[in-house]
Amino acid sequence: MANELYQYSIISALMDGVASHGTPIASVLAHGDHGLGTFRSMDGEMIVLDGAVFQMKSDGSIIPITDPAETITPFATVTRFQPTERTRATVTSKQDLAALLNRLFPAARNHFLAIRLDGVFKSINVRTAGGQCFPREGMVAVAERQTTHTFHGVRGTVVGFRCPDWTMGVNVAGDHMHFISEDRQRGGHILALETEGEVEVGVAMMSKFHVDLPEGDDEFNEAALVKDEKGIHAVEG
Amino acid sequence: MANELYQYSIISALMDGVASHGTPIASVLAHGDHGLGTFRSMDGEMIVLDGAVFQMKSDGSIIPITDPAETITPFATVTRFQPTERTRATVTSKQDLAALLNRLFPAARNHFLAIRLDGVFKSINVRTAGGQCFPREGMVAVAERQTTHTFHGVRGTVVGFRCPDWTMGVNVAGDHMHFISEDRQRGGHILALETEGEVEVGVAMMSKFHVDLPEGDDEFNEAALVKDEKGIHAVEG
Repeated sequence: MANELYQYSIISALMDGVASHGTPIASVLAHGDHGLGTFRSMDGEMIVLDGAVFQMKSDGSIIPITDPAETITPFATVTRFQPTERTRATVTSKQDLAALLNRLFPAARNHFLAIRLDGVFKSINVRTAGGQCFPREGMVAVAERQTTHTFHGVRGTVVGFRCPDWTMGVNVAGDHMHFISEDRQRGGHILALETEGEVEVGVAMMSKFHVDLPEGDDEFNEAALVKDEKGIHAVEG
Repeated sequence: MANELYQYSIISALMDGVASHGTPIASVLAHGDHGLGTFRSMDGEMIVLDGAVFQMKSDGSIIPITDPAETITPFATVTRFQPTERTRATVTSKQDLAALLNRLFPAARNHFLAIRLDGVFKSINVRTAGGQCFPREGMVAVAERQTTHTFHGVRGTVVGFRCPDWTMGVNVAGDHMHFISEDRQRGGHILALETEGEVEVGVAMMSKFHVDLPEGDDEFNEAALVKDEKGIHAVEG
């Protein structure tokens, strides 16, 4: 069904460094064509755009995933996206975008949103995770080695989700967005953004939420999965 | 699919007194034949046993729900139960049952379990919620007026779930079980239990988890949904 949120594993597992195993990306794509996530060993950022999957690596390279049945993700969130609200807006910051979403969906404080922006960005600041140095290395440590890039005057697409506060630890509470340029050469996890004039904004509220947990995965079974709200905000904010 | 956990709303909403509206029980039964929950205004305990639904009220009466399409639940958890482990065991307490479940499923610390016991209970202590006195009355306040009963030498069935710690606030972390006697005259939310010799034990691990959130429900939209771990343990432990 359209606009249902599907996620494989939970963000607390990724925080705990549970990233050696996972599920084939093809099985995630069965649940959605719009989303984000990461790869085995947290090697880069995943973006799912119109059903196509890209790996955005810390060296700045972007790899189209052409074999989703053979590529593993330890954590991903997707939806079959059908925006129910469409508008054009000039967005000056992540905070400004958050305020726009609040205006568009005043009664969605405890629900999920799927978000897409298309247009030209005056400035977009991203990070890309460089991967674990060893199994079970936690995400806070991995994030200390992340690469950041700022792109100016770049045309592209933002794919993201808003998760309500009560999901913190299961997913990332708040707005979590990845970017890829139209030429598919630049992208990453968005730290800051500003549009160049108006961009297309599409949003859908989601009230159905599906979680598949790793099966037969010792790392997952042994993880403490204690909610690290501060850590999640630090690395996913 | 068998052994997938489905829940309508989240336990934090019930804690916040979100119980005026909900979903028809028939729509919950579409996702499972084994489960528990409550009714509008938290009027009693719900048990779903082999697809039959009973309302166990604080006056001790038990009402079979014969019109699930017309009866509303603000919170329920069910699964299509197919036990993957079956054994016979003498159980001396909830703690003893917890230890048995740990032995049966050593690698399920971060997964869900569906639980069923059938047999004779030497002693079973239950509570039944008496309902809200006004809309949005929180569950801790409702629980202060709960009725408790102890049954001795009663044959019946325990229906329950174990939810992993990371779900706290979404569902009830730990073991959450309801009881109904074989004659369908006695039951409630289990506070303590001891079996009369061996009982049949059936358990299944679950790694798929589905949540439907209330839609168009002002109470849900306005609720703070702050995780009240102590409160949930106090009223659901």
